[in-house]
Amino acid sequence: MATFGLIEYRDANPEVRAVYDDIMATRKTDWVNNFWKALAADPALLKRTWEDTKQLMAPGTLDPVMKELIYLAVSITNGCPYCVAAHTVSARKKGMTDAMFHEMMAVVGLANANNRLANGYQVEIDEQFATAKPRTL
Amino acid sequence: MATFGLIEYRDANPEVRAVYDDIMATRKTDWVNNFWKALAADPALLKRTWEDTKQLMAPGTLDPVMKELIYLAVSITNGCPYCVAAHTVSARKKGMTDAMFHEMMAVVGLANANNRLANGYQVEIDEQFATAKPRTL
Amino acid sequence: MATFGLIEYRDANPEVRAVYDDIMATRKTDWVNNFWKALAADPALLKRTWEDTKQLMAPGTLDPVMKELIYLAVSITNGCPYCVAAHTVSARKKGMTDAMFHEMMAVVGLANANNRLANGYQVEIDEQFATAKPRTL
Amino acid sequence: MATFGLIEYRDANPEVRAVYDDIMATRKTDWVNNFWKALAADPALLKRTWEDTKQLMAPGTLDPVMKELIYLAVSITNGCPYCVAAHTVSARKKGMTDAMFHEMMAVVGLANANNRLANGYQVEIDEQFATAKPRTL
Amino acid sequence: MATFGLIEYRDANPEVRAVYDDIMATRKTDWVNNFWKALAADPALLKRTWEDTKQLMAPGTLDPVMKELIYLAVSITNGCPYCVAAHTVSARKKGMTDAMFHEMMAVVGLANANNRLANGYQVEIDEQFATAKPRTL
Amino acid sequence: MATFGLIEYRDANPEVRAVYDDIMATRKTDWVNNFWKALAADPALLKRTWEDTKQLMAPGTLDPVMKELIYLAVSITNGCPYCVAAHTVSARKKGMTDAMFHEMMAVVGLANANNRLANGYQVEIDEQFATAKPRTL
Repeated sequence: MATFGLIEYRDANPEVRAVYDDIMATRKTDWVNNFWKALAADPALLKRTWEDTKQLMAPGTLDPVMKELIYLAVSITNGCPYCVAAHTVSARKKGMTDAMFHEMMAVVGLANANNRLANGYQVEIDEQFATAKPRTL
Repeated sequence: MATFGLIEYRDANPEVRAVYDDIMATRKTDWVNNFWKALAADPALLKRTWEDTKQLMAPGTLDPVMKELIYLAVSITNGCPYCVAAHTVSARKKGMTDAMFHEMMAVVGLANANNRLANGYQVEIDEQFATAKPRTL
Repeated sequence: MATFGLIEYRDANPEVRAVYDDIMATRKTDWVNNFWKALAADPALLKRTWEDTKQLMAPGTLDPVMKELIYLAVSITNGCPYCVAAHTVSARKKGMTDAMFHEMMAVVGLANANNRLANGYQVEIDEQFATAKPRTL
Repeated sequence: MATFGLIEYRDANPEVRAVYDDIMATRKTDWVNNFWKALAADPALLKRTWEDTKQLMAPGTLDPVMKELIYLAVSITNGCPYCVAAHTVSARKKGMTDAMFHEMMAVVGLANANNRLANGYQVEIDEQFATAKPRTL
Repeated sequence: MATFGLIEYRDANPEVRAVYDDIMATRKTDWVNNFWKALAADPALLKRTWEDTKQLMAPGTLDPVMKELIYLAVSITNGCPYCVAAHTVSARKKGMTDAMFHEMMAVVGLANANNRLANGYQVEIDEQFATAKPRTL
Repeated sequence: MATFGLIEYRDANPEVRAVYDDIMATRKTDWVNNFWKALAADPALLKRTWEDTKQLMAPGTLDPVMKELIYLAVSITNGCPYCVAAHTVSARKKGMTDAMFHEMMAVVGLANANNRLANGYQVEIDEQFATAKPRTL
C-alpha cells in the first residue's frame, strides 16, 4: 500500500499554491523541490515548515551561507541524503566555495570523532565549564 | 572495576607534557581541560587528536568562531554534554555572541526536524540535486 | 566562561512573562520548568517553541497521551535525559499507565534493534513498498 | 565480494520455512518481505526477531496501530529507509489514516528539534522530574 | 510525578528473583546492577532482555571480550552513559586490556568521522560492493 | 548545481596519485574505491584520512578483522550505507566468516535496544561503575 505522492503545482489547492509561490519568489526560482511537494500532503505542515525555514535561514548576525553550513553539518551528522543533496546546492547558491565546504567537512568529521572520545573516556565536565547562574532579563 | 583516570600535568610523562604545553601555548591558558587529561591515557591518541584539532579549528577560509559554531552544532545534534559545555566556552572565547548562539541553535533545531520530515515523507532526491560527474584535478 | 542561566518569572520581561503565563494556564500548573526558563534567553525561540508545542501536542486524531508516547519514543531513541525525565512526567499526567509505558519501551527497543538489522543486512526496499505516485489535492 | 542474498521460500530449509509460514499466517499475506528473507541468512536471528516482533507488536494496552506509529517514529528518527517504507505500509494496514500519520510526523519533528534545544541550552533536570525511589513489587 | 524505582532483591517477587539469581550465577557476582533492577518494573522485559543478553554475549565464534568491545563501540557511538560505564567494567572482567580499549576507541573515532565524510561527499556505492544475489540454504 | 565528482586516477595530480598508489599497494588491489576518489576533492583530507585509516586499522593487539567488525558495528549503528557496503567487503577480505558477521549483528541489535532501555528507564550509574581517580603515568 502506498503512502503520499508529490503534489505538483498544477494539482495543488490555493493554500498550497500560495506557499509554492512564496518559496519561488523568496528563492528566485521557477520550480519547487520534492521536499515541499511531499510536505504539501499536510498543508499546515508545509506552511509551518516553510515559514520557519524562511525566517530562521534568513540573513541575521550570521550570513545565510553560514547558516547553510550549520544546516549541512547537522544533516551530514544525521545522515539525511535528501537534505545533504539539497542543501549542498543551496549553500553554493548562497556563496559556499569549495574551500568553505572542505573546511566544514573537516570540522564535522573531527567533532563526530571527538564526541565519541568524550563518551568512551567518560570525561567529566570541568568546573570551569559549568553553566551560568540565572540572570535578569 | 575502574577505567582510566585523568592524567594531571605533574603526573604526566614528557611526551604527554609536551602536548599539554602546546595546548596551553596555543590556547593561551594555564590549565588543560579534562578531555585532554583523559585522552592522555593513550598518548598517541592525545597527540593525534590535539594535532588534528589544532589544525582543523585554526583560522582558514572560515573564521575560528564559525568553525566552533559548526563543531557545536554537531555536538548538540549528537547530544555530547561534555563537548557542548566545553565548546560553548571556547566559542565565546573566539567571539561568539549571544545572537550568534541563538541563531545557530535555531538552525540546529530546524535542521534536526526537517531531516526527519524528509525521512518520514520518503522524499526522493530531485534530478537537479544529483551529484556532479567526475572532473579533472 | 558561562553560558546562559535560567530566567525566573520574577526576573522576566513582559514578553517572556506572557509566555510563562500561557504555559501555566495551559498546563494548569503554578510553575514553569527549566526547559522554558532556559529558552527564555532567546524570547523569540521561547515563543515559537511554546506555540509549536502547544499546538502540535494538543488533542487531535491522536490523543495527547499518544502524542506524548511518540515524543518519549523519539527522546529515548536520541538519548536526551532532560526530555525523557520531563516527558515521562507529562505523559503520566495525560493518562499514561505503567502498562502503556512498558509496551512503548518494548517497541522502542525492538525498533532500534531492527533498524540496525536492516542496515547491516543491507535490505533492499521491496517493490510493494515503493512510494505512491503524485496525486491531486 | 558479496555479502548475503535473500533466501526465497523455495530455497529455504524447513526451519526457515516454518518462520515464513508463521509470518504469512499472522499477517494474512501470501508473501514474505525482504527484511525476513535477508535475516534468514541466520535462522536463529530470523526466529528470534520474528518472535519478538510478533509478540511486542501484538494488541495490548496499546492498539497495534499505536505501536506502529511508535515504531515509525523511531525509524524516522534513526533514518532507516527500509523500515520507514515497510512500516508506513503496515501501519496503514492496521488502520493508520492520513491524519494520524501527519500528527505523528509533526510530533517527531518537534521532539527532534526540542531534544537538541535541551542539549544546546544545557538544561538541568528539575527536582520535580527526579526519578522515583525504589518500591516493592 | 515520579516514574519507576529500582526493584531490590528483598522487594522482588519470585519471577524477578529467579532472573536476579540467574544473573548472579552466570556473572559470578553477589549483586545485581541498576539496569536489571530498573527493568524489573516490567518482569517480562527483564526476563527477555536477560535471556537475550546471556545468549548473545556468550562465547561463540567471537570471544566474549570481542563481543563486549562491539557492544561498547555501539554504546559509545550512541552516547549511552550508563551502558558505557557498565560495559567498560564487564569488558575488563572478560579480559579487555588497556591496549584493546585504546585500539577500539581509535577505530570508533575513525568510523564515526568517516561515516560523515561518506555522507557529506555523497559517495555512491561502487559496483564491486553491491550485495549478493539470493542463494540456496 | 553540482557538488564534487570522483577524481579518477588518470585525472589526478601527483599528490593524489601518491595516495592512490599507497592505497592500492597496502590493500593489494588494482583499483581505488569511490570513497577515496570523492575525498580527493580535498587532497589534504584524502591524505589525512588515508593515513589515519591505514594506521588505526592495522594489526595491533586487535586483529584487523576485529577492527573491521568494530568499524562495521559503528557504521551499522549510524546507518551509513556506503560504509556498510564497503566494510562488509573488506571485513570478509580480512577473514570475517558468516558466523562472525551474524554474531556481531546480534550484539549490535542487542546493544542498540539496551541503550534505549537504559535511557527510557532512566537508570542511574551504580557506584561500582564510577570512573577511576587520576593516576600517574
